[in-house]
Amino acid sequence: MVEPQPTNVILVGRKDVMNYVLAAIRLFNDGASEVVFKARGTNICKAVDAAENLRNLFMKDVIVKKVNIYSEELERNGKKRRVSAIEITLAKPSQEKQ
Amino acid sequence: MVEPQPTNVILVGRKDVMNYVLAAIRLFNDGASEVVFKARGTNICKAVDAAENLRNLFMKDVIVKKVNIYSEELERNGKKRRVSAIEITLAKPSQEKQ
Repeated sequence: MVEPQPTNVILVGRKDVMNYVLAAIRLFNDGASEVVFKARGTNICKAVDAAENLRNLFMKDVIVKKVNIYSEELERNGKKRRVSAIEITLAKPSQEKQ
Repeated sequence: MVEPQPTNVILVGRKDVMNYVLAAIRLFNDGASEVVFKARGTNICKAVDAAENLRNLFMKDVIVKKVNIYSEELERNGKKRRVSAIEITLAKPSQEKQ
């Protein structure tokens, strides 16, 4: 895949959901055409919430371009553990056309 | 969209994740070519877990065909509330070709 612009990734973790919404707004306002929310495990719902909050409350022209789910293997204390993860790619069509 | 077969929807709720994995295995074994996990709010991560468990541990030929995220408006005690939701469509390619 050829990506015309560097992708802007926001890792969704333990902070309140609005932190991630604000981070995305900032990236879009700085001219990003795409913003990606990434999250693992129980933070997956927070990533979906952040994307939906952004689209419903703040930037109604932003679309969900792609949603990926996958698994990651993490090692902790020598034990391997599979963790589900999500990647939500949001795009602002008006800026993409430029 | 034309759907050749009735879609098999599994609503992911409060039960343990393995219940939903087993339900999907049963549907695929009964001949379903597609199974859809649907979940809302904090159950979203469970739906992703169910899909990833199914694919990694039990049915390695199952693919993630589509992931949708959206919002639903629920009314409770006269108050409207927006809830994020996910829809994960899994497909078994070998059965789709038949």
